[in-house]
Amino acid sequence: MHSMNKKLILITNDDGVEAQGIQVLMEEMSRLGEVIVVAPDSARSGAACGITSTRPVSLRSLGRRGDVSVYACSGTPVDCVKLALEQVCPRRPDLIVSGINHGDNASCSIHYSGTMGAVIEGCLKAIPSIGYSLRTLSHQCDFSPYTSELSRIASFVLENGLPQDVCLNVNFPEVASLAGSRVCRMARGIWQHEWVPAHNPRGMETYWLTGRFSNLEPEANDTDYWALDHGYAAITPIHVDMTAYETLSRLQSLAR
Amino acid sequence: MHSMNKKLILITNDDGVEAQGIQVLMEEMSRLGEVIVVAPDSARSGAACGITSTRPVSLRSLGRRGDVSVYACSGTPVDCVKLALEQVCPRRPDLIVSGINHGDNASCSIHYSGTMGAVIEGCLKAIPSIGYSLRTLSHQCDFSPYTSELSRIASFVLENGLPQDVCLNVNFPEVASLAGSRVCRMARGIWQHEWVPAHNPRGMETYWLTGRFSNLEPEANDTDYWALDHGYAAITPIHVDMTAYETLSRLQSLAR
Repeated sequence: MHSMNKKLILITNDDGVEAQGIQVLMEEMSRLGEVIVVAPDSARSGAACGITSTRPVSLRSLGRRGDVSVYACSGTPVDCVKLALEQVCPRRPDLIVSGINHGDNASCSIHYSGTMGAVIEGCLKAIPSIGYSLRTLSHQCDFSPYTSELSRIASFVLENGLPQDVCLNVNFPEVASLAGSRVCRMARGIWQHEWVPAHNPRGMETYWLTGRFSNLEPEANDTDYWALDHGYAAITPIHVDMTAYETLSRLQSLAR
Repeated sequence: MHSMNKKLILITNDDGVEAQGIQVLMEEMSRLGEVIVVAPDSARSGAACGITSTRPVSLRSLGRRGDVSVYACSGTPVDCVKLALEQVCPRRPDLIVSGINHGDNASCSIHYSGTMGAVIEGCLKAIPSIGYSLRTLSHQCDFSPYTSELSRIASFVLENGLPQDVCLNVNFPEVASLAGSRVCRMARGIWQHEWVPAHNPRGMETYWLTGRFSNLEPEANDTDYWALDHGYAAITPIHVDMTAYETLSRLQSLAR
């Protein structure tokens, strides 16, 4: 009877099933419920909400790690969530968590993020969903400053749910100790100087994607970027309905 | 002097540079200004806002088709826009159009759409941007019922611009003659029954992504899905700021 009442938590990410960040989530979420992992078999950085429509997607059990069942998928983070819900999970998960991403997904970077792609997919399936990301350039880093806070947020969501069509984008600054957590809006921001010419021995014109991010409203203290810059975790509620409601009446002149 | 005043229009898509839909856009947009095409070298369906971060992206001139300069890119639709803006366009485009996608991108399908990924990217770069999609299953179809309407919408946006951080998602129904055009919101919808087991001769567990879409509010007459179902073009303004503003105060209890 007890296991019937245990919460079911699905974990995924975009850095791949062997990434350091997802191991931290496995350990922390195991304290809160029964855990299933379905994650990409290797890194899918920048996968956004991409789906695999031109070839079959493979699913492979990696067995159990402690109490956690782990699966690797050849598809995108969104594919992982879709496959997990229909082909892996014995019942509907109570919570989906994605991450911990190595690199922040604040401001407009959310649009490119595979971590948040999985979270948006969970939300579209009406399951409370949270993405976690850490502002770091390192592939190996210390996640201990964030574990209690990420568990607190997950527990809150398990207990209270989230508003309809809303998921959470949680970003951590790289600090020894968090200043706190703030509920934020997305900063307006822009990526610039995005391409570096690449040497191509076959003579093709090729470029590496890179870039510099600029926060376009650095003074505003209610944004995710401000929070990260000041040592706070940024908790940003994200609406999967992207309609620009405030412009509907203004654009009525386009109807005919 | 005249060419200096001509509007510059950038065209891309996610079905690839040789797709039928993008040829239609080239022809129609050539009447409105100077046109540059930078599009994927083959289909990128379901690419969403994905970016290519793990390998270089190639850019290849295909020469001119009439008055239009055409380039093929090995990356995603978002990569195409980013490359076009920094490496191809002689000046900042006045308009970015993407499509015409073969298949609609209404309701939650916007999240998976490479067509709309390019549009969102244009909007993040503060350029008026429009995505066009046709509800059809066919790779060869008659676009003539839509050409005058898509040009009307593009002309409107060239003349009036769009509100800050807002782009347009335009979807056409497959009809001989449009009933009209409506300014809409995104319908709430869900994809279900998404996987079909695939035969794999090597014995791996594999699945094809497919699915059935359900409009969760079929009675509402202000949605993009309703418009398409009733023969109207659906013009949906999309906000690239995904913050769920109406929940910010309600979620303040998560701050600490």
